[in-house]
Amino acid sequence: MQEIDLLIHSASQVCVVPGYDGPQRGERLGDLGIVEDGAVAVKEGRIVAVGKSVELRADYEAETMIDANGRTLTPGFVDPHTHLPWYGDRANEFEMRLGGASYMEIMAAGGGIMSTVRSVRQASLDELVADNLPRLARMLRYGTTSAEMKTGYGLEKAAELKQLDAMWQLSQRQPVEMAFTFLPAHAVPAEWHGRTDAYVNYVITELLPAGAEWMQKHGVTLFCDVFCEAGVFDVAQTRRILTRAAALGFRLKVHADEFEGLGGTKLAVELGAVSADHLVKTPDADISALGQGETIAVGLPGTPFGLAEREYTPAKAILAAGGALALASDCNPGTTWNESMQMVIALGCRYMELTQAQALAAATLNAAYAIGCGAEIGSLEPGKQADILILDTADYRQLGYRYGTNLVQTVIKKGQVVVE
Amino acid sequence: MQEIDLLIHSASQVCVVPGYDGPQRGERLGDLGIVEDGAVAVKEGRIVAVGKSVELRADYEAETMIDANGRTLTPGFVDPHTHLPWYGDRANEFEMRLGGASYMEIMAAGGGIMSTVRSVRQASLDELVADNLPRLARMLRYGTTSAEMKTGYGLEKAAELKQLDAMWQLSQRQPVEMAFTFLPAHAVPAEWHGRTDAYVNYVITELLPAGAEWMQKHGVTLFCDVFCEAGVFDVAQTRRILTRAAALGFRLKVHADEFEGLGGTKLAVELGAVSADHLVKTPDADISALGQGETIAVGLPGTPFGLAEREYTPAKAILAAGGALALASDCNPGTTWNESMQMVIALGCRYMELTQAQALAAATLNAAYAIGCGAEIGSLEPGKQADILILDTADYRQLGYRYGTNLVQTVIKKGQVVVE
Repeated sequence: MQEIDLLIHSASQVCVVPGYDGPQRGERLGDLGIVEDGAVAVKEGRIVAVGKSVELRADYEAETMIDANGRTLTPGFVDPHTHLPWYGDRANEFEMRLGGASYMEIMAAGGGIMSTVRSVRQASLDELVADNLPRLARMLRYGTTSAEMKTGYGLEKAAELKQLDAMWQLSQRQPVEMAFTFLPAHAVPAEWHGRTDAYVNYVITELLPAGAEWMQKHGVTLFCDVFCEAGVFDVAQTRRILTRAAALGFRLKVHADEFEGLGGTKLAVELGAVSADHLVKTPDADISALGQGETIAVGLPGTPFGLAEREYTPAKAILAAGGALALASDCNPGTTWNESMQMVIALGCRYMELTQAQALAAATLNAAYAIGCGAEIGSLEPGKQADILILDTADYRQLGYRYGTNLVQTVIKKGQVVVE
Repeated sequence: MQEIDLLIHSASQVCVVPGYDGPQRGERLGDLGIVEDGAVAVKEGRIVAVGKSVELRADYEAETMIDANGRTLTPGFVDPHTHLPWYGDRANEFEMRLGGASYMEIMAAGGGIMSTVRSVRQASLDELVADNLPRLARMLRYGTTSAEMKTGYGLEKAAELKQLDAMWQLSQRQPVEMAFTFLPAHAVPAEWHGRTDAYVNYVITELLPAGAEWMQKHGVTLFCDVFCEAGVFDVAQTRRILTRAAALGFRLKVHADEFEGLGGTKLAVELGAVSADHLVKTPDADISALGQGETIAVGLPGTPFGLAEREYTPAKAILAAGGALALASDCNPGTTWNESMQMVIALGCRYMELTQAQALAAATLNAAYAIGCGAEIGSLEPGKQADILILDTADYRQLGYRYGTNLVQTVIKKGQVVVE
């Protein structure tokens, strides 16, 4: 008998979601590698074995035993695209929109992204941290064990660095593990209105070096991301920023094709970006490029849902082209304030026509690859970090089918029970 | 100082949702009667006063004090249309649909409503009760303090009565209060296929009298409901059933216009039905009728959402006609398994173009009227039952704006804290 720390046994299904060799691409998406009547053995925060309950109970002597009692085990959800940390809310703007106000009327009333930028700039670091801790607690309770967070509500040096510092503190103060993204090119701030090229120069000469310095000081690799969209940053501006960022040691991401297909996805593939995100209006040529390259396509179905729009990421076309698709929440105060990846799965099933198995793999394994962590998290394979959910159901197919409530009963992060 | 049982004070907003005189009709929908820095006084399970915290704290001596600490109070949600109690699930059918299977293929594989009918017929009364208790527990945790439940998965005498008995037991065993509906005309069961008129005769001569007997034995008034829809029961058949039901002492409801506008809504108004539910394809003449009559229009946005359909209840037209609109979940295992009225509000805001205030009033006061209980529940007015939610937010407008998680912190039913 081998001594281990934790054995979770008697699960109706262990959804392994195999993917040591890379994300699940194209038609392979949805391979869950289910072990029925299964168990997972954990030692020092890592998975050491997955197999039949009867076998693992014979092979391992565990300090802690958890009887899953016919429930389902899945990898912890990975949310590879959020806009935490932000400050305040925009419930009034949502109300105005429902009341029929136009985008311009909302802007005139002080709404839109600059409203959150003003709030974030004014908030102290402590306020920013305190405002986001409950959001992370909700994410965790609904099963998200790792998440990406980003800047982009500072849009000036001090406030962008304050957002980075807030992320850092948040990563130290609760269990959700984080990937950090630097997004000073999220919007052209009001004070640079009409001078986009000048703002791009400022990003390149002032903000990226400041981000690079922060990165070295903290010993983590940052992603650099750009909002490549009509009326924001065009493909040439996006290329300038990302090329400079890559030279400074950032890994790359792109916001592309949310409202118009400019070619941002193709650029992402060309530059070897880890992910291209949104992808609603993605042109056919860019979908083909996803099939050829390594860049993960991240669908954010909460965003069109949040805005009651009718068009979603063309998942079937991306998969038919051989692309690797992940899901994320895009959780943010303007378009979609939802912390639950279960809700994202429910939306992905209905509006991206994914099966529950495809959506689950996209929200775990492929989402882990979308933040460059596919070798560490996102599946229940030996050697990986023990980030495990116990769902209060005997069948993973209740994910997506049911919605609006929480199917997660227990959350295990690095082998420790953090929600029960 | 008047002695009371409970004082909840220091709420940023008390959303009273006034409506002693009737539901909020037409343009009035969304009158929340907000008291800022408010308090609610409760004695013997009823609200005795609502007002400013400073005043109520001076006037009342409470055995229990709850400091809402800047949070928001609303009436408990009322869910006036669910399909509890059912047995089993149809996650496999959802998966088939996502995989592209047609309705006919799903039926051929044993899916569809008859799948649930078979499960309910086979389940024992105890199994039926046990399977539904967790659903009610989730409803309560997400803020539903009263709900309608119905038969309609029996479609034969013994099984319909078993569903009634299950409801009765469920109503005794947990805090959510229930309205009971008898729906033997939910579908034409397989064994009556092609003989709809004969099944209608069976409903009228056998099932309605059995329901009436149950009603007298238990001393409660049942609603009788019919699924008036193309290919199910036409308007003439619906009229026969409901007319007989009214004569037997049932109050009336109608499922109308989910897939085709047959005239079921107009019939509901003509017969004085308490509610007409679904109302997606409702003809203009029927919308006008809603404005003239007393029948509440119940929108079920979870149903088109659950099926990824694009058309929803035309709320604006119903309100423009002077109708009274309520919201409900339609929670059922086939089309929309969602227990949360918060999710229904989020859908109502996005797809029925309701403001958060309109959706909240539709999910509380008007929903109470849709089950004939508007004088007892649905608002925070003195004299009404003390069914109160404490939302973990300072602004009710976060309802609908945020979605996917649970904003309800504390649930109070008849003056007792039942979730905290």
